[in-house]
Amino acid sequence: MKITDVRASCYRIPLEQPLTDAGHGRHDHYDLVTVELGAEGGHTGLGYTYTVHAGGAAILALIEHDLAPLLLGADARRIEALWRDMWQRTLYVGRGGIAAFAIAAVDIALWDLRGRTLEEPLWRLLGGAADRVPAYVGGIDLLLPLDQLMEQTRAALGDGFGAIKMKVGRDLLAEDVERVAAMRELLGPEAALMVDANMRWTVAQAIAAACALAPFGVYWLEEPVAPDDYAGHRRVAAEGSVPVAAGESLRSVGEFAHLIAASGVAFPEPDVTNVGGISAWMRVARLAEAHHLPVTSHGVHELHMHLLAAVPNASYLEVHGFATERFVRQPPHFDAGACIPPTAPATAWSWTRRPWSPTATPDRTPVPVGTSQR
Amino acid sequence: MKITDVRASCYRIPLEQPLTDAGHGRHDHYDLVTVELGAEGGHTGLGYTYTVHAGGAAILALIEHDLAPLLLGADARRIEALWRDMWQRTLYVGRGGIAAFAIAAVDIALWDLRGRTLEEPLWRLLGGAADRVPAYVGGIDLLLPLDQLMEQTRAALGDGFGAIKMKVGRDLLAEDVERVAAMRELLGPEAALMVDANMRWTVAQAIAAACALAPFGVYWLEEPVAPDDYAGHRRVAAEGSVPVAAGESLRSVGEFAHLIAASGVAFPEPDVTNVGGISAWMRVARLAEAHHLPVTSHGVHELHMHLLAAVPNASYLEVHGFATERFVRQPPHFDAGACIPPTAPATAWSWTRRPWSPTATPDRTPVPVGTSQR
Repeated sequence: MKITDVRASCYRIPLEQPLTDAGHGRHDHYDLVTVELGAEGGHTGLGYTYTVHAGGAAILALIEHDLAPLLLGADARRIEALWRDMWQRTLYVGRGGIAAFAIAAVDIALWDLRGRTLEEPLWRLLGGAADRVPAYVGGIDLLLPLDQLMEQTRAALGDGFGAIKMKVGRDLLAEDVERVAAMRELLGPEAALMVDANMRWTVAQAIAAACALAPFGVYWLEEPVAPDDYAGHRRVAAEGSVPVAAGESLRSVGEFAHLIAASGVAFPEPDVTNVGGISAWMRVARLAEAHHLPVTSHGVHELHMHLLAAVPNASYLEVHGFATERFVRQPPHFDAGACIPPTAPATAWSWTRRPWSPTATPDRTPVPVGTSQR
Repeated sequence: MKITDVRASCYRIPLEQPLTDAGHGRHDHYDLVTVELGAEGGHTGLGYTYTVHAGGAAILALIEHDLAPLLLGADARRIEALWRDMWQRTLYVGRGGIAAFAIAAVDIALWDLRGRTLEEPLWRLLGGAADRVPAYVGGIDLLLPLDQLMEQTRAALGDGFGAIKMKVGRDLLAEDVERVAAMRELLGPEAALMVDANMRWTVAQAIAAACALAPFGVYWLEEPVAPDDYAGHRRVAAEGSVPVAAGESLRSVGEFAHLIAASGVAFPEPDVTNVGGISAWMRVARLAEAHHLPVTSHGVHELHMHLLAAVPNASYLEVHGFATERFVRQPPHFDAGACIPPTAPATAWSWTRRPWSPTATPDRTPVPVGTSQR
């Protein structure tokens, strides 16, 4: 089944309200890069990735100039072969970075095409371990005043969610402690409460923070320190007495192998859009399983619901604040805080072809950054 | 001294003859990305990077869309601040990959601007440890027939060089052994002979190869295995009994820190054009020095001659086959196999502004891939 065309686009998607975390600062938009593949027999597949702040145009350029020529005419069913070809083609400038995002978008499109062709939803195609996945709401709320943080959390509880993640890493640890304490009081003793420092801290700061927050029953502490400080992660995990989650900033299976080998992570957290796609995400999930670890997710819950439902070692699904689920035809369905992936046999998932909702205000209209077609 | 304009370009540079290695295959061209900065007072700086196979257009896009807006209006003299800003701006899609190349090109332009402004050659500006650097000729000759390999080596010896690197990693180890033996016989017992496997081997294969080649007096074995297999490098170094060189495929100071901490390398080999520029290269050189290791180079000898002359722990300078030195106004001068960096006070180095030589054959004419100006 030869690939007959490759169309890549980049859109700037404005957020409804600015979001802030300790590592990346303020977000008022993200760039969404889409890849549409056409294949013999009229089959199509759609993949995508997104960036924080920089890189959308570079991802588009890499797909257009370096990946599309390799894809055209190739057999769309041989995903492993194509993935290796893309990795090898970008080896000198790759092994992570922009290349990991570009390969991810193409790989997701190949899996979408496979799902549509075989008329099977992705989560079953990949294994179908469970037909529901526990979910948590991932707040991006570092600078939100405490009363608004409480209000946002009450809304999530009202929607049936029983697990919440909040940002930490404010200028004073005492502020983090006050906010986490208030959150635990609101949630009650049972609900899972995750905290996320977005790489803000040194190892010493992270250990101090973990010890200060542990009494409030922290389910995991996410990204306490720089992502490639594997030994630092191990120290935080061992001396902070709180399970560590990490991985949204790792860009290859190899980086996960290093972090896991260092005993630096309790909840590996690959993001399918930046670790190299579904083919790479599944490798990380299997690597975690082999080390008796669960796997969780970051962002794009409309994709990760399939992946976590597929594997036997799934932890919570993050319901992410960028709201990318509004662009897919089969958005996640939630029931009592769990996500139910679609069972429709026709497609793995599908896309509206216009990846944005109409908005009333011009400044929230997505801006096309570029499109290329081969 | 405010930056007033940023002009980036990408050129496809054809090679005079195809070159082959075991990791990247056949090279018949490379993409050269240039960055020209203009600053108040009419000062200018030129930086550049190059790629193997893929990524030129993506590097250009990242500079144009994400780095140029950050540079314009900033003080060109505060290189540390600008480097951190570029790192942070590209953090989510960076920490290596395309971003490391883009930051490198800008950082090199900032150092060029500094050298021109202060009227001091870069090698003295950065320390001036030595005014000559021993050099070796780095052949890219994996598929060259043995007689042509000998002929190429005789030419290098005739030019006064007493140190040579050859490619290994052919399909049969016996072929590598035969070629290395012939090379040693031609060179005599004293000359330094390096071999480079370009990541071709597994750890077991690399150890076997190192043991088979050691009797021929190998100065270093370069890139025996995958670049981020730090523990594998340590095993090759320990069990192969040949010093290991590595680093042209590492894209951050952090990756060098991991490899050095693992005792996986005897000759760290950062490439200024892909590790994040002069600011990052100097950090790797200092890191090596702190661990009692020398530092060597990869590619662009017209730049690396300055960097190796600057630091007290320099090993050999590679004279690289891509011949980028023909584009600079002050190309390296060689004397008895050593490189003499320029002492002209006016500029760190300069560029012809048209980064190619006229060629007689149309298929060797560089193709402009794109240009942007802010």
